[in-house]
Amino acid sequence: MSPQRRRQHLVETALQLYRQRPPQDVSVDEIAAEAGVSRALFYRYFTNVGALHGAALGSVVDELTGRITAAAEGPLEAQLRAALGEFFAVVRRYPDSYAALLSTGSATAAGLGDLVERLRGHVVDLVLERLGLSDPQPLLLLTLRGWVSVVETALLTWLPNPEPAQEHLESWLVGQLLAMLRATAAHDPACAEQLAGAL
Amino acid sequence: MSPQRRRQHLVETALQLYRQRPPQDVSVDEIAAEAGVSRALFYRYFTNVGALHGAALGSVVDELTGRITAAAEGPLEAQLRAALGEFFAVVRRYPDSYAALLSTGSATAAGLGDLVERLRGHVVDLVLERLGLSDPQPLLLLTLRGWVSVVETALLTWLPNPEPAQEHLESWLVGQLLAMLRATAAHDPACAEQLAGAL
Repeated sequence: MSPQRRRQHLVETALQLYRQRPPQDVSVDEIAAEAGVSRALFYRYFTNVGALHGAALGSVVDELTGRITAAAEGPLEAQLRAALGEFFAVVRRYPDSYAALLSTGSATAAGLGDLVERLRGHVVDLVLERLGLSDPQPLLLLTLRGWVSVVETALLTWLPNPEPAQEHLESWLVGQLLAMLRATAAHDPACAEQLAGAL
Repeated sequence: MSPQRRRQHLVETALQLYRQRPPQDVSVDEIAAEAGVSRALFYRYFTNVGALHGAALGSVVDELTGRITAAAEGPLEAQLRAALGEFFAVVRRYPDSYAALLSTGSATAAGLGDLVERLRGHVVDLVLERLGLSDPQPLLLLTLRGWVSVVETALLTWLPNPEPAQEHLESWLVGQLLAMLRATAAHDPACAEQLAGAL
């Protein structure tokens, strides 16, 4: 294998293991054994297991941002539903990794907190773009950040026991966003002006 | 000083220091020096600095839960405003500690994640009680948990740069909760039935 291919293979092996266990429970020994390489070879590609976790979770975040950006057709509600559908599809493949990414434990380990912030920022930017807002009022920005945390909380609660059905949860989340935005518009005239026509 | 008084004094000294810096930046040496005791004496009361941080932040969480429980007069919106006012008052005294409590870094250090969960659970129970709900639908519970995360996100964004004014942010947060609950009622007939009369 070429060095680049070998590195990618280690990342993919880690992601496979994350399907059964969160990153912090996956060791260098396991990854090396599963990938069929020696520990020594592993350390030629990554300085420590945290560096691999960062690269692997980074690739999940890249996939997430790529996929939710792609869905951009139709009216606002349909766009949001499509984007949430893509988001859910990726998160359901790596539920433990997603929980680990958001949870307190591993976020510090390898600058993973930055990954989470990047993802949150991307979602906020995306909704702003779909709303046609380039210079949002602070309270509008707070509304969108708040909604992102609602999505995260809902996913973390829902993933271990996926009831109600995914479509139901997605449409509930879209309804929450629209209700939050309308409440912000009702609360603040400057926000109402920015949102006029978008909702 | 009695042992109990001495212990309490160390907790209060730590809380004083947290006003300037987050817990993870406060050392045993500093606390001991500030409290006028030796390191040896410190370790008679706490096995390590993490144990003191846990005790000190636990006392803040106790104060928070006590104060937000006390405000229970008048109509729902006024009750929520009063509870948020108490919450904000305590958090503004310890902004760094609150951020540290919620942030990734220190939450793992000494089981502080449990403190955060205790506080969140308390807020959810309180709102349920004020809504007159003893056995809430899952989606209603998700709505309340989501709103708690909106409050946390808003506070973390707002504390370093407190604009708009506190009253403005409080009433915005109350508006968000009511809008979220109404959207949940509109989405799910069983939730609508539970909320009938409460909103």
